Amino acid sequence: MAKLPKRSEDYSGWYNELVKTADLAENSAVRGCMVIKPYGYSIWEKMQQALDTMFKETGHSNAYFPLFIPKSYLSKEASHVDGFAKECAVVTHYRLKSDGKGGVIVDPDAKLDEELIVRPTSETVIWSTYKNWIQSYRDLPLLINQWANVVRWEMRTRLFLRTAEFLWQEGHTAHATSTEAIAETKQMLDIYAHFAENFMALPVVKGVKTPNERFAGALDTYCIEALMQDGKALQAGTSHFLGQNFAKAFEVKFLTKENKQEYVWGTSWGVSTRLMGALIMAHSDDEGLVLPPKLAPIQVVIVPIYKTDEQRMAIGDKAIEIKKALASLGISVKYDDRDTQTPGWKFADYELKGVPVRIAIGPRDLENGTVEVARRDTKTKNIFNSDTLDIEIPKLLDNIQANIYAKALNFRTENTTKVNSWVEFKEILNGKGGFISAHWDGTPETEEKIKEETKATIRCIPLDSTSEIGVCVYSGKPSAQRVLFALSY
Amino acid sequence: MAKLPKRSEDYSGWYNELVKTADLAENSAVRGCMVIKPYGYSIWEKMQQALDTMFKETGHSNAYFPLFIPKSYLSKEASHVDGFAKECAVVTHYRLKSDGKGGVIVDPDAKLDEELIVRPTSETVIWSTYKNWIQSYRDLPLLINQWANVVRWEMRTRLFLRTAEFLWQEGHTAHATSTEAIAETKQMLDIYAHFAENFMALPVVKGVKTPNERFAGALDTYCIEALMQDGKALQAGTSHFLGQNFAKAFEVKFLTKENKQEYVWGTSWGVSTRLMGALIMAHSDDEGLVLPPKLAPIQVVIVPIYKTDEQRMAIGDKAIEIKKALASLGISVKYDDRDTQTPGWKFADYELKGVPVRIAIGPRDLENGTVEVARRDTKTKNIFNSDTLDIEIPKLLDNIQANIYAKALNFRTENTTKVNSWVEFKEILNGKGGFISAHWDGTPETEEKIKEETKATIRCIPLDSTSEIGVCVYSGKPSAQRVLFALSY
Repeated sequence: MAKLPKRSEDYSGWYNELVKTADLAENSAVRGCMVIKPYGYSIWEKMQQALDTMFKETGHSNAYFPLFIPKSYLSKEASHVDGFAKECAVVTHYRLKSDGKGGVIVDPDAKLDEELIVRPTSETVIWSTYKNWIQSYRDLPLLINQWANVVRWEMRTRLFLRTAEFLWQEGHTAHATSTEAIAETKQMLDIYAHFAENFMALPVVKGVKTPNERFAGALDTYCIEALMQDGKALQAGTSHFLGQNFAKAFEVKFLTKENKQEYVWGTSWGVSTRLMGALIMAHSDDEGLVLPPKLAPIQVVIVPIYKTDEQRMAIGDKAIEIKKALASLGISVKYDDRDTQTPGWKFADYELKGVPVRIAIGPRDLENGTVEVARRDTKTKNIFNSDTLDIEIPKLLDNIQANIYAKALNFRTENTTKVNSWVEFKEILNGKGGFISAHWDGTPETEEKIKEETKATIRCIPLDSTSEIGVCVYSGKPSAQRVLFALSY
Repeated sequence: MAKLPKRSEDYSGWYNELVKTADLAENSAVRGCMVIKPYGYSIWEKMQQALDTMFKETGHSNAYFPLFIPKSYLSKEASHVDGFAKECAVVTHYRLKSDGKGGVIVDPDAKLDEELIVRPTSETVIWSTYKNWIQSYRDLPLLINQWANVVRWEMRTRLFLRTAEFLWQEGHTAHATSTEAIAETKQMLDIYAHFAENFMALPVVKGVKTPNERFAGALDTYCIEALMQDGKALQAGTSHFLGQNFAKAFEVKFLTKENKQEYVWGTSWGVSTRLMGALIMAHSDDEGLVLPPKLAPIQVVIVPIYKTDEQRMAIGDKAIEIKKALASLGISVKYDDRDTQTPGWKFADYELKGVPVRIAIGPRDLENGTVEVARRDTKTKNIFNSDTLDIEIPKLLDNIQANIYAKALNFRTENTTKVNSWVEFKEILNGKGGFISAHWDGTPETEEKIKEETKATIRCIPLDSTSEIGVCVYSGKPSAQRVLFALSY
């Protein structure tokens, strides 16, 4: 088995290699588009399931809208088109024909009257539909989510983190009042934060973006920001308060209880396969993935250690018994008795794949009524009585989930630095990195200059921070609150 | 509430209206692309879940492959490109730019070197990937499924039945031997048939397509064919034995146990949102949808009938109690106590939506400890003791599921006619319609002529039919087996 580069020596190479060798994803023949491999996809399915359940519990329904957006729709919301026009895949024709030499060419006679854009996000096509769905206050709120693929023609791509095509969910809601829409925006941010912390074991900062970093077409963009092991921040989800921008662009009005015509208020919110990148970079180590049990496709693997066929049979009986007992508790267990690989190879392979718990059973264990239990996160081993596994393994999985979170939280705490001077700012940024909590004068000009000089951006204005009078770390002008800076993905 | 056209007077109008008014789907602003509305999508989700479970139980994993296919890939399998080139959405550019007048135009500087096709099906991009995934017999079988959107630029579209973009699953498997690949092809056909009959309550004929009707690139196409209420057939799913065609086109070889390099054997199989069309047309009536309980998003609706607030409160308590009891059995129940609509309006609305069971509770019922239970399929009502619902409702749902199936099976039996002459063939086809079981001489020429003269096609050569010597109903030449003809969707 090929060794991964070390994180400390080549973080970027480590990430790329890990994504490929752990069978998560790979680049395809189409520039910027990835293939999500079965093991990676099964983690994404677990993410989808957890999120989808929470969306439905909060009253949202799934629906499906067209992949294609007429070009003219994009222009209807001015800042929206500015944000997306530069990275659009454009469909111009609807037919190929033979080139007479065994190949095919685009049929020039099959040119579309109006070009179609492959959706980079679906606000425009969805709001054009909402126009017909919303007449009165009785039709509100309209709470819809879509699981879909989208395309943004990124020039520099990276598996999961930035790809031309990616998978995501996009919620699009319409409300009678601004207050309700803002409450929805915040509710969805809370759901994302809950998911990140409780399923991905990923501590996140909830905040609001500066105007510079807002979604194209939003009045406010809320976000969750996470810290990766190399000290860079990663935006893990966004929730936008759209005001009446899209309602006005697509003429979506409703009759109020008071019998007046008013524009509706909108939100949109999304997380994507980018979360896979966050999951990998937050927890994994030089031996491979470290998956939180709640998202691990295989939570427990059982590896038999034997010399004779007789031993293999006897261990197999025990393993199947354990597997059944754990499966009845809802734990996913794999029994790997392939005889084409050694136990050592299997141990390394399941470490690479991030399986949280490994149970090894040898002939001596059978005699003693024990098993060897190894946990992936701490790489510690313990001998367990094999009759107690239905009690011990669920506890252990909970413990691992909590430990992975605690470790990441500890890392973030250690790598969040309050700075009070520009010198200090640059020193921390170029040194340990991480989140830098600093005063900012609130102007886009200062934000731009800091970005130009250091590549650091304002990740967010944290929601939970208290107001604190100070002076901008860059301009020296007055500031009312610290914001979080970082280099980012 | 607007009335649907009657099936007997305007079947096609009835279908279109039903799809829209029952909130299943609607046409979008993009030609041929539909919007699947929340209620329709929730039925599709139930279909997905049932199928996905069966795919996984038979060892398949989900993965995800790119939306785009390089143009040159399509040409690599000769008959494949012939089958799909004429209906492809082609991406030629990757950027828009401002037209200086507030709109956007395609940026001519952002032309792709090689055009990309929006996948009409993914054999080519998947087999190009399999080349790297398969080296030895140990990598086989490779059993993968993808849930995705695909685009085929159909000229005449119809909601669910034929749309430019549709949702589907596509399985793509690779095997060491022809025997194994054929067994997989048949296994997946059996799964489709099981799903159609046991979830959709839709009887299907399993069969094999004639060479004329094969998938572009397959050696054999197996299918399930169902009969709609207007006597037309609908192909509800296909499973293809690809032989070594795609393996050869993409150079996918493996090292056998005997240390030889051989091409692998392939299959592909799919069902799509077309199944929604089949579900609607097979069971529904002039009042609206009739949904089999196993796919109904709402299985039971409870409607209160009251005059005073006091009555409404008391009925509400009882309704919530019933809802909880049924929900604990896994039954999805909606309690509709909106006071903006009358009970009569609600009754009609839930009939339109196909909710299998309606429970009405009035003040008299409360006194008597009873409820009125109406079933959607037969439109019969019964008085039930409200304490026995946890026993009676599950039985009733099973009964409805079985009855819907039996009714459809009975319809198909009555509308499958054995004919022995060309006169009789045309008489049946133009009269009652349905499946026509007739002898055919096995030549594509005769098949074509019958299609030209009557529009009827050979739906399949049924798998379960016994050989029977006869003469072709059209040419009079010898025939060894009857095949199924029909007009079709």
